[in-house]
Amino acid sequence: MTDLAVARWTRLGPVFSPDSIAVVGASATPYAIGNTVYANLRRDFPGRLYPVNPRRAEVLGDRAYPDVADLPEPVDLVIVLIPARDVPALLERCIAAGHRSAYIISSAFSEAGTDEGRAAQAAVSEIAARHAFPVVGPNCIGFMNGHRTTMANFSLQPDAERPLAGPVAIVSQSGGFGSFILNRAVVERARVGFFASTGNEADVTIADVIRYAVEQPEIGVIATFAEATRDPATLLEAARRAAELDKVIISVTPASSEAVARAALSHTASVVGSSQVYDAVCDQYGIVRAGSIAELIDYATFLQDGKRMRGRRIAVLTSSGGAGVLAASNVAETGLEMPELSPPLQARISPLMPSFGSARNPVDTTAAVTAMAPENWGLILGELCASDEIDAVMALVWGGDSDHADTVVKLYEQDKPIAPVVTIGPEKLADRGLPAFADPTRAIRALSAMAAVSARAPAGPPTHAVDQERADWARATLAEAAGEPIVLEATSKRVLARYGIPVTREVVCHTEDEAVAALAEIGGRVALKVQSYDLPHKSDSGGLVLGLATPDEVRAAYRRLARLGDGGVRLHSLLVQEMVPARLEMAIGMHRDPVFGPVVAVGLGGSLIEVIGEPALLHPPFTRERAVGLITRLAGGRITHAVRGLGADHIARLADAARGLATLALDLPELESVDINPVMVTDTGIVAADALMVLR
Amino acid sequence: MTDLAVARWTRLGPVFSPDSIAVVGASATPYAIGNTVYANLRRDFPGRLYPVNPRRAEVLGDRAYPDVADLPEPVDLVIVLIPARDVPALLERCIAAGHRSAYIISSAFSEAGTDEGRAAQAAVSEIAARHAFPVVGPNCIGFMNGHRTTMANFSLQPDAERPLAGPVAIVSQSGGFGSFILNRAVVERARVGFFASTGNEADVTIADVIRYAVEQPEIGVIATFAEATRDPATLLEAARRAAELDKVIISVTPASSEAVARAALSHTASVVGSSQVYDAVCDQYGIVRAGSIAELIDYATFLQDGKRMRGRRIAVLTSSGGAGVLAASNVAETGLEMPELSPPLQARISPLMPSFGSARNPVDTTAAVTAMAPENWGLILGELCASDEIDAVMALVWGGDSDHADTVVKLYEQDKPIAPVVTIGPEKLADRGLPAFADPTRAIRALSAMAAVSARAPAGPPTHAVDQERADWARATLAEAAGEPIVLEATSKRVLARYGIPVTREVVCHTEDEAVAALAEIGGRVALKVQSYDLPHKSDSGGLVLGLATPDEVRAAYRRLARLGDGGVRLHSLLVQEMVPARLEMAIGMHRDPVFGPVVAVGLGGSLIEVIGEPALLHPPFTRERAVGLITRLAGGRITHAVRGLGADHIARLADAARGLATLALDLPELESVDINPVMVTDTGIVAADALMVLR
Repeated sequence: MTDLAVARWTRLGPVFSPDSIAVVGASATPYAIGNTVYANLRRDFPGRLYPVNPRRAEVLGDRAYPDVADLPEPVDLVIVLIPARDVPALLERCIAAGHRSAYIISSAFSEAGTDEGRAAQAAVSEIAARHAFPVVGPNCIGFMNGHRTTMANFSLQPDAERPLAGPVAIVSQSGGFGSFILNRAVVERARVGFFASTGNEADVTIADVIRYAVEQPEIGVIATFAEATRDPATLLEAARRAAELDKVIISVTPASSEAVARAALSHTASVVGSSQVYDAVCDQYGIVRAGSIAELIDYATFLQDGKRMRGRRIAVLTSSGGAGVLAASNVAETGLEMPELSPPLQARISPLMPSFGSARNPVDTTAAVTAMAPENWGLILGELCASDEIDAVMALVWGGDSDHADTVVKLYEQDKPIAPVVTIGPEKLADRGLPAFADPTRAIRALSAMAAVSARAPAGPPTHAVDQERADWARATLAEAAGEPIVLEATSKRVLARYGIPVTREVVCHTEDEAVAALAEIGGRVALKVQSYDLPHKSDSGGLVLGLATPDEVRAAYRRLARLGDGGVRLHSLLVQEMVPARLEMAIGMHRDPVFGPVVAVGLGGSLIEVIGEPALLHPPFTRERAVGLITRLAGGRITHAVRGLGADHIARLADAARGLATLALDLPELESVDINPVMVTDTGIVAADALMVLR
Repeated sequence: MTDLAVARWTRLGPVFSPDSIAVVGASATPYAIGNTVYANLRRDFPGRLYPVNPRRAEVLGDRAYPDVADLPEPVDLVIVLIPARDVPALLERCIAAGHRSAYIISSAFSEAGTDEGRAAQAAVSEIAARHAFPVVGPNCIGFMNGHRTTMANFSLQPDAERPLAGPVAIVSQSGGFGSFILNRAVVERARVGFFASTGNEADVTIADVIRYAVEQPEIGVIATFAEATRDPATLLEAARRAAELDKVIISVTPASSEAVARAALSHTASVVGSSQVYDAVCDQYGIVRAGSIAELIDYATFLQDGKRMRGRRIAVLTSSGGAGVLAASNVAETGLEMPELSPPLQARISPLMPSFGSARNPVDTTAAVTAMAPENWGLILGELCASDEIDAVMALVWGGDSDHADTVVKLYEQDKPIAPVVTIGPEKLADRGLPAFADPTRAIRALSAMAAVSARAPAGPPTHAVDQERADWARATLAEAAGEPIVLEATSKRVLARYGIPVTREVVCHTEDEAVAALAEIGGRVALKVQSYDLPHKSDSGGLVLGLATPDEVRAAYRRLARLGDGGVRLHSLLVQEMVPARLEMAIGMHRDPVFGPVVAVGLGGSLIEVIGEPALLHPPFTRERAVGLITRLAGGRITHAVRGLGADHIARLADAARGLATLALDLPELESVDINPVMVTDTGIVAADALMVLR
C-alpha cells in the first residue's frame, strides 16, 4: 500500500505544476464558473493555455479548440468544467490524445445522489485507475499554485489581489469550505502559496495531495480540512515524511462520526470513538490538530516562518498584570511552562522597569515603563530573546505604540519565536510579515502548537516484522473453537502469555473434583468462572464467584455455576483461578478502527471502564517510550501520583503488555478485538485477570 | 452581608453618573496621564468640570483650583491623579468639603510592594469605610459612561473616535488589560456604553460595580475580567438580580490558583480546585463563562441585542457540505441540537435549491443555488427564521455576496437569532449593527452561550433556614470528642442519618464478645473497622477487614485490628458493620472553598476518587432539580446509561443526600469537610458505607 501511495503522489507534478493547460468548458459568460476559472488562469499563468469550447471560436480573445483531441500538443493538465455525463468520454479522449492529467471541477456526480451521477463518478474512477491517469475531483473548486502563478480555481476572483505566495499550503476536500479557509487565511496574512480542493476524490485523495505537498521545497506548512480520511496509509506516510523534512501538517476534521463508530466497535472500544483515534494518531505521527478554522489559520500563520522552540519554556512580556495572570492560566492549560527567570536575568531586566514592576515571569513592566524611558521596553524584549532560559516570548504590544511594534519587527529577525498580541490593528504587524494575535489565549495555543512540532521525533515509528512461528501457533490455538466468534478466557490468556503478557495462574476443570484439586494446586483463595461461548461477559451474567477458600465452598460454587447450563447455555468448562490482590485495576484493549486499523488502549479498568476517562490510545507499531509517556499522563497524571497508584515499574510493564498486544494485532489480522479487563496492578507487577478475544 | 452589598452599590451613582467632576492632578503636559484624562473629559462631559492643580492657574484653558477645598461646589466625583502618599489627606479634605466620591487612578499603592504604598492604601480603605465614602481604585485606568459621555480614563485617546454607546458594559479589575479588552471590543463592533476598572479595590470591588451595572437600564450585558473574586456574596447577588432582569454577566477569569487551592483542601476535595468551583458557581447562578478574551467579546457582541432562544435547536444554512459537517461536529460538542427538519419544512425549502442540495439540516444549498435563482438563498433563510422547529440559525454568508448580507440584515430585524459567518470583511455586517463571525466554531459557541442564558431560571436559588434544634443536637454530638480535629465514623454517620442520609447498620464494640454479638444482630457478612482519632483513613492503614461470616472470623479479625494499638495508635473502638452489595460506588463530599464557602460534590466513589473525572459541584443552598440535573450528566451521562448504572430513583436519592449534606454545612459552619465514600448504590437505594468529618 505504501508503494502504491508513493507512486501516486509522484504522478501529481503535471497536475499542480503544469507547463500547459487546457480548460474544457472555458466560457465567455461573465460569472459563469468556466469564465472565472479561465480568466483567473489567463491573467498570469506563465505556461501555454488552451480554451476548449465547441460552441465558440474564441474565449476572452484566445483561439478556442472544439475538443481536447484538437489541441496542438499533449498538455500536462486538462481542467474539466462540462456536465458530468460527458466527462467519462472526455477523459478517454484525453488519454487517447496523450494529455497527462485532469482536474474535474464540475459537480452533479455521486454527491447528487442520482444513479446517473454515481455512474459517471464510477466511470471516472475506473478510467483513472485503468490508465494510471491522475484525476482530481470531481465536484471541487480547483487549485492554486502561487509559486508558479497558476490560478486554476473559482475561489479567488480574477480581478482580486493575489495572495502573497509563501510556504503555506491549504488542502481541503470540501471546495466551498476550502475556499472559505483560503479567503480567511489571506485576510489573516498567511502567505498561501498553494491551495487545492479534492472534492469527491474519484481518484486522487486529499492524502495524496498532502503527500505531494510535503515534497515541494517551497511548501513548509500544510493546513488541511477533511470530512473523512479515505486513505490513512498515505496520510501517515505523509506525516512521517513531514517529520523527516521538519515540515508541518495541521488538521481540522469534524468529530461527527463518533456515534456511528461507537456502535460498530466492540465492548472495550465503546469508550473510543473514531475522533479520539484520529486525535491519538495525529499526536503519535506529529500532525498538529486544530480545533477550529481560526486555530488552523493561527497555527499556519505562526508556523509559516519555520521557527522552532528548543523546549516548552516561554516568557510573557506584559505591561498589565491582569494579562500576565490570564496568560499564566492559559500556559498551564496547554502544558507549556512559564518558569521564573533566573536571578541574573532578573537583575538585568529589573533596572529597566519601575520598581513596582516584576521581572520574574510574567515580566510585567507596568504601563509606567514608557514614561520611564521609551526604549526600555525594547531592551527588555531583547534580553528575553537573547536568553537561553526560555524558548519563546509572548509580547503584549499596545495598539498605538508603534515604537514597540518596530522593536518586535526588528527582534523577530532573530531566531527566537515571538508571538505578539496587539489591541488595534494586528494587520499593521501582519503587513510587515509578522504573526500577530488579537487575543492572548490564541497566542498561547499557537505557541503550544509550535512547541509540539518542535518536539517531534524526526524518525518515524518502528516497523513490524511478523514472528511467523509464534503467529502460526496463535492462529492454531485460536482456531480450537471453529466457528465461534469469541475465544474462551483460558485460551485467550494462553495466547496473551505467549505474547509476553502476564496472566493469572488457572486450571480448566470439567468436574467438581478437578476444581477441588485445582484449589489445592493454586493455594489461597480462588475464583470460579464459567467458560461458555454463550456468555462472553461472565460477571454480567452471574457466571463468576470470588474468594473461595475451602473445598466445600468450591463444590457449592461449582454446582451453582453448573446450573447456568440448565437454561440452554452451552457450558464449556469452569475455570479455577488464583485471586490476585490489586492496588488498582487497569484494562488493556485492542480494537480495529474503521479508518486506521488496530488501536491499543490502556486505561483504568474494572466495572467502571465505560464510565471513566479517556484511555491512552496507541497505533501499532509504537515505541515503548511512547507507551510509557501516554500511560504516565493517563487521567492527567493522577494515576501515577495517587496513593497506591502506578509506579515506574508498573508503567513499564503495562507498556510492554500493550506492545505485546500490538504485536498480536499486527500478526493476526483476523483478531477483531481483545479486552483484557481487569489487569490487576499488584505491589510487584501486573497480571491479566480476565480476557476476551473476538474474532472477525 | 447582602444588605451591606446592596447599600454599597446604591452609593455608586455619583461615581459613574456624576453631574460635576473635579480632576486632581489635571495636567497641561501632553501625554501625561493627568492630561489625557482631563482632555478626555473636557471634550464632551456634559456636566461641570474643575481642574485641580496648585501649580497652574489654568489647564487646557479652564481655570484651575489649588485644592479640592477651594472648589465652588461640592462635586459628585473627585478623580485623583496625584502621588500615593498625598492621597489619604486629600480624601479627608474631600470629605470635609462635602464632595461625594473619589476615583483614584494613581498607582504605587500596595501593588508597589513597599511599606509606604501599603500604608497609603490601608489609609484609603480606612477613610472610605469610616465615612461610607465610595472610593474606586487606586491603580486603575478610570472609567467611561458612554450614555452620559463621561470619558474619565486614559484608555481611549482624547482625539479618537468614541465607541458607539450601547448595552455592553466592560468591567475589569486590571486597568491595562481592561483597556485591552475595551479596545478589542470596540474594534469588533461591540456597542460599549460603560467601562470601569477597579484596580487594587481599596474600597469598591469589581462585584460592587457589576452589581451597580446590573441595575442600570441602558446596560444589558456585562463583560468582566477579574484576577480574583474578593466579594463573592455581592457577585452572586448581582448574578441573581441579572437573572431576574434577564441581563447577562459574562466572566473571564484565570484558572491559576488551582494548585494553591488544592493543597489547602481536604482529601475528597483534592479533585476540586477553586477554578472548578468558580465554573460550577457561575453555571448555577447563570453567569456565562468565556474561555478567552476573544470569546468574551464574541458573546458580548452576540448577546448585545437582547435576543433569546426558546430552546437549544439550531439550523445551519451553508452552501458548503464541509462547513456543515464541521458545524455539526461543533454543535455536538456544545450540547446544542441540530435536529433534522420536519418533512413539511423540507418540502418548502427543497424546491428552492438544486436537487443535489440537502434540506435536512445542515441545510446545504450548494454553491449552485445562486446560479439557480439569486433570491432563493434569502427565501430559504426566511423559511428557517419563520419556523418554530428551530430556535436560531447559523448562516454562512460568502464574503463577496452582498445580496446575501442584505438578506441577513433584513431578517435580523425579526426575533429569531441569526449568527452570520462570513469570509472577508465581517466588519461590513458589523457596521450595520449585526454580529458577524469569521469562524464557524466561534459562532456555534456564541449560540451555545445564548442558549444557556435563555434557559436560566429567572428565580434565584432557594434560601436556607436553620433547624436550630437539629443543629444544636448535631453540634453537641460532634463535640463528644473535644479537641480532636476528626470525627469517628459511627458518630459522623449518626449526624448524617439525622440529616436524611441513609447509612449502614452498625454497632460500636469495645470487646470481642460485643463484636460477635453484633455479627448475630446484623446477620449475613459484616465488616470490622477500627475507630481511631489517629487513623482517619482506615483502608490506607490496614484498619479494615471485609466479608466476615462466622464468630471465629470476627474474633480473629478483632484481634488483628486490636494489635494496631500496639504501636501507640489510640484505638477508640471497633465498628461492626453490615456489608452492602453495591452495583456502583459513589461519593458525596463537602468542603469549604476559600472564596465561595461550602461546596457539595457528588461523584464516582471508591478508591479511584482522586483519579477519575470531575464530580458534580453544588453551591448550597440549591434545588433538588439542580442536583438531579448535574448528577444525571455526571461523566457525560454515561453513569446513567451504563449497565448497572444509576436509575432515576438512585439519582433522586443522591440528590436528597446532597441536599442533606448542604443543610448540615449551612447549619454548622465549624464543619470543615465531610467525605462520604463510598456511598453504595444498591438495587433498591443508596447507603453511606463510610464517612469522615473534619472540624475546623
